[in-house]
Amino acid sequence: MTRQLHLNAFLMNTGHHEASWRLPESDPYAHTDLAHYVNLARIAERGTFDSLFLADGPQLWNTVAQRPAGALEPLTLLTALATATEHIGLIATASTSYNSPYNLARRFASLDIVSGGRAGWNIVTTAGEEAARNFGLAAEPAHAERYARAAEFTEVALKLWDSWEDDTIVADKAAGVWGDDAKIHPPRHEGTYFSVAGALNVPRSPQGYPLLVQAGSSEDGRAFAARYAEAVFTAQQTLADAQGFYADLKARTGRAGRDPEHLKVLPGIVPVLGSTEAEARANERVLDEHIVPEHGRTRLENLLHLPPGTLDLDRQLPGDLPPESAIEGAKSRYTLVVELARRERLTVRQLIGRLGGGRGHLTFAGTPEQVADAIGTWFTRGAADGFNIMPAVLPSGLEAFVEHVVPILRARGLLRAGYGPRRTLRERYGLPRPANQHVTRHPAPALSRT
Amino acid sequence: MTRQLHLNAFLMNTGHHEASWRLPESDPYAHTDLAHYVNLARIAERGTFDSLFLADGPQLWNTVAQRPAGALEPLTLLTALATATEHIGLIATASTSYNSPYNLARRFASLDIVSGGRAGWNIVTTAGEEAARNFGLAAEPAHAERYARAAEFTEVALKLWDSWEDDTIVADKAAGVWGDDAKIHPPRHEGTYFSVAGALNVPRSPQGYPLLVQAGSSEDGRAFAARYAEAVFTAQQTLADAQGFYADLKARTGRAGRDPEHLKVLPGIVPVLGSTEAEARANERVLDEHIVPEHGRTRLENLLHLPPGTLDLDRQLPGDLPPESAIEGAKSRYTLVVELARRERLTVRQLIGRLGGGRGHLTFAGTPEQVADAIGTWFTRGAADGFNIMPAVLPSGLEAFVEHVVPILRARGLLRAGYGPRRTLRERYGLPRPANQHVTRHPAPALSRT
Repeated sequence: MTRQLHLNAFLMNTGHHEASWRLPESDPYAHTDLAHYVNLARIAERGTFDSLFLADGPQLWNTVAQRPAGALEPLTLLTALATATEHIGLIATASTSYNSPYNLARRFASLDIVSGGRAGWNIVTTAGEEAARNFGLAAEPAHAERYARAAEFTEVALKLWDSWEDDTIVADKAAGVWGDDAKIHPPRHEGTYFSVAGALNVPRSPQGYPLLVQAGSSEDGRAFAARYAEAVFTAQQTLADAQGFYADLKARTGRAGRDPEHLKVLPGIVPVLGSTEAEARANERVLDEHIVPEHGRTRLENLLHLPPGTLDLDRQLPGDLPPESAIEGAKSRYTLVVELARRERLTVRQLIGRLGGGRGHLTFAGTPEQVADAIGTWFTRGAADGFNIMPAVLPSGLEAFVEHVVPILRARGLLRAGYGPRRTLRERYGLPRPANQHVTRHPAPALSRT
Repeated sequence: MTRQLHLNAFLMNTGHHEASWRLPESDPYAHTDLAHYVNLARIAERGTFDSLFLADGPQLWNTVAQRPAGALEPLTLLTALATATEHIGLIATASTSYNSPYNLARRFASLDIVSGGRAGWNIVTTAGEEAARNFGLAAEPAHAERYARAAEFTEVALKLWDSWEDDTIVADKAAGVWGDDAKIHPPRHEGTYFSVAGALNVPRSPQGYPLLVQAGSSEDGRAFAARYAEAVFTAQQTLADAQGFYADLKARTGRAGRDPEHLKVLPGIVPVLGSTEAEARANERVLDEHIVPEHGRTRLENLLHLPPGTLDLDRQLPGDLPPESAIEGAKSRYTLVVELARRERLTVRQLIGRLGGGRGHLTFAGTPEQVADAIGTWFTRGAADGFNIMPAVLPSGLEAFVEHVVPILRARGLLRAGYGPRRTLRERYGLPRPANQHVTRHPAPALSRT
């Protein structure tokens, strides 16, 4: 079989365009409406997507005036979606800075069991003081410390997920023996950030553990991804940048002693479709015209760590912005936005328009053929193993993609026509089920060879 | 309408009898089988139960040899059950010692939204060193400290659940205004155990917040229940004890400034049914004969804080056990078990048989009429507002209760025949939806009266 695209549907209430909720078709209460998300999940399943994904952060953003705020907790929502779908993978964002490994490992194992092996974890370290102050911290931990904690958190979670061997349960009713205690391996972890003694209180799940996903593209983020991630979501604005990122991450993965094929790179794309290119551009313009510029300016000032009121809507960004190394928040997103503005000499107002759709992800307005061409080009020219599809408006943008772009990708042999016999999320991404670290693979006896 | 029974189904893999998994009919993998729990929930809904309930603790008990160990994380399982049921309330146990208020408040609000107002929280402080050592603590916090933390945790959670007024979302598409920031109330809580600054990132849920349930009967537990609980699960062995507990808790609730009617007391009962009393006793005996006595002895030694091997199966408990005040674990359960053994002069082997079914809850073997009589007696004689039904074997014990006991209770006018128009869990328990602490009820203008 030729190499196949991996598609992930990034779901976000009424869509990724910040003004999407203002369209006549949009439901401003969609963010907490289970039926809305069930509908989206089923559309994505019709398009034979590998997975769907929910972003998250443990804080309410600065204002509810601007656009829909708050969201159902992702693992809760994905559990409900697991019962409404059959095939699609379910990837939840959860923070290593504001959870404990024991509870989170258990919740992901539980989702993996309930969904029949379809759980994925987008591992985030969570930038921002707002989140820190909801968990007893006066300020956010430094970027490097957040990543050190994330690595130890992940190691502890892996120990917990391997704390039951697959065949621990013997269920011998006659003897009154349910399980084999010799196959339980308590982590007995004593580390810098965590001490976790006991085994998990749920058996090893269908996938062994959830698909590990990562989405930070800073130096720390890439190092982390090379070591742990099986899928990476990334924001890339140009083919050249995406190729550079792809090559770098695959090389790092190899240097970390892993098969580079076992890490899939999925850039984000915001497709805005029209039956002609002009119609697509008009659709994009309608959306941008619904942006309240002052709202966009506030968010841009937050991203760039500037005091409120610093930016002038009709001028370019100031020339004296600090370098990425001075930023403790979302480092790679900071650089991407600053470089985009400088490269295209955008005013703040224009930059807000560009960010309103995808917040730094590539917005692509065009016909279904043009979108399929772009996807095919990035996929075949070493920039992507698949895409993180971020519709500007939901559900209509996802429906349009599945109805018009998916058939073209299938006709070109780039995308499966059905789900086939594979069942788990990791199988869909072409990844092996991980072995349990406590199970020694006995080598074949050497005697017969001598 | 005459006063109605409140029934809760306490679900636990193959049943509450520790040997239930060994019966030919039992599925030893039921503990992680969603279909098993969906079946149980639907049976309970046929019986018009108010709610179902899952116990939990964040640790794997000492051995997996004895009986099914581990469980799906309760909020995950209840979310899946929410999509498979329509009416029944969904009560999850979660610990105030090993969670953070922000995350847990969000998860319960999310379940309440996804279930249409059917979420309940059994607030536990979590006894035991095993749990503590999974969360970076060398030893469990002292009993009183756990309760002090639980009270502050609950206060913070209430602030978070009230951090959005009900009418925060205005959804004015034309003006580009989604929400009213004046109706967002960040907790800005700075306390002994928690600092939580920001508002919750999910709107106020259908019930305002989940039904608050509590199950500790120690002095600290009763004080906590009087202040916060809307339903209380309790283990009582005799009518007199249950009446004493009921009267005490209602009086405390009144002294705490609350309407005693707004706290419902539900003792646990393990019904073992037969078409004759002799058949019921025989069914109970079959179960008890499947207990491995050495397993029961180990658990009893744990409960009584005795070194392994201390107890002799064929003798009574030692006379020199410490008083409840010296116990830092499950205080009221400790006293209940010691008193039961002394009152009935049970050997350790006999005591294990008595505890095998209900772990301290009342086991009642009899005909459906006898079980209905017992329920009716406790209900009408000031010992209970309803019952926590704990079938010895699942699903068969719950099926038998719904098929044979529920019709009798309905015929006697003690139990509803259908769910009727009430929708939320709190409505089923006859409780008002709580007002938001930030919404001032403006008194009617006094001018017209002067």
